[in-house]
Amino acid sequence: MCDACGCDLTGNEDAKLVEVHQSLLAANSALAEKNKAHFEAMGAYAINIISSPGSGKTTLLEHTIDHLSGQYRIGVIEGDIETDRDAERIRKKGVPVVQLTTGGACHLDAALIHKGIHLLEKEPGGDKLDLLFIENVGNLVCPATFDLGEHQRVVAVSVPEGSDKPAKYPKSFISSQVFLITKTDLLPYFDFEIAEAKKEALLLNPKLKIMDFSATSGEGFEVWLDYLKGLVD
Amino acid sequence: MCDACGCDLTGNEDAKLVEVHQSLLAANSALAEKNKAHFEAMGAYAINIISSPGSGKTTLLEHTIDHLSGQYRIGVIEGDIETDRDAERIRKKGVPVVQLTTGGACHLDAALIHKGIHLLEKEPGGDKLDLLFIENVGNLVCPATFDLGEHQRVVAVSVPEGSDKPAKYPKSFISSQVFLITKTDLLPYFDFEIAEAKKEALLLNPKLKIMDFSATSGEGFEVWLDYLKGLVD
Repeated sequence: MCDACGCDLTGNEDAKLVEVHQSLLAANSALAEKNKAHFEAMGAYAINIISSPGSGKTTLLEHTIDHLSGQYRIGVIEGDIETDRDAERIRKKGVPVVQLTTGGACHLDAALIHKGIHLLEKEPGGDKLDLLFIENVGNLVCPATFDLGEHQRVVAVSVPEGSDKPAKYPKSFISSQVFLITKTDLLPYFDFEIAEAKKEALLLNPKLKIMDFSATSGEGFEVWLDYLKGLVD
Repeated sequence: MCDACGCDLTGNEDAKLVEVHQSLLAANSALAEKNKAHFEAMGAYAINIISSPGSGKTTLLEHTIDHLSGQYRIGVIEGDIETDRDAERIRKKGVPVVQLTTGGACHLDAALIHKGIHLLEKEPGGDKLDLLFIENVGNLVCPATFDLGEHQRVVAVSVPEGSDKPAKYPKSFISSQVFLITKTDLLPYFDFEIAEAKKEALLLNPKLKIMDFSATSGEGFEVWLDYLKGLVD
């Protein structure tokens, strides 16, 4: 008990919250399994991309589509709290896309993705895909907790954010298969240590595949493109 | 119901979750009021800073302390999911600081801050302050929901993140009193429209005070310093 104000901080609500959350996460996992079956029925390899706001997820997708949409059928599910701006950007690339807005929630969940799958199927070409990208809400924390049924999870950190992010936001790196270091064209202007970021990420998750590139300058980008081709060929 | 897999997406758990969350938020608000009484007993004007990971909150505090710690008693409560690196950086500036780690949670809450206040009081000079800065977990979404008892909430967006962030993450801007556009020394390298960011933020919250500066180059920084002096003088 606090001397100054007498607060009792034992937190009676915590146990109830944990119980409800565990139940929700179990329901989410069950739906995620169904989503995965949907993805496979569409022929799609599904990739869930998570990162902070502004680390370049939409730009990454724009350039990926520019390079691969001639060879592969690509679809995109965009997640945001508000606005459909990212879907507008992707639509200009001529691939099927749907925008999901969470209306305040900090992450996509399997139920919302399930709705997104059905919306995507109604878009021209959206029912048969080779690659389906899911751009999660910009948030390096909460999306790591919610399985969407994806085949792989990709976490991205851009050079302006700093190389200390894996250690500070471990769950995103522990739960992902791929770690992208983006905007490497900005390395001259920032104190970002690629070796430090890689080392700390591998300490958390030794199986993580790590790639660093600039989608805008194209430097190193072929490694990402080749990786994607390897997943679907 | 879904034709492909028969899922029932009505979400039975949602109502229970909303109920538990409302109860938790009410408990948080009650504790936040007690925190505010603590801040005032310490003589401290408390400022809660929220932003994405890597938008420069700790650097902002380092430079603010460099300029103001000769005139004012400053203390800092650092919030992170993991690591005490930010508190180590602040400690080098010679002001009282405590690090709170949430152990996975995506935001600070009033109960954790209450513990932080008592830890800070045990630090040399930590019991009597003019300004108390709370650096929240790097997350532009969830911290906006949790009142910590602060006198003002400040949301920061750095130039590399893009000027579309207010519209995409509205709650942080609606619930704040101040919007800082940081790292303006990087404007030549990014497609960031200060006028767009200001306009969209003011549409959400017409009372928002907006300042843009670079803490590292110092350009425009005196406006922020003068604003802080105005709060405590």
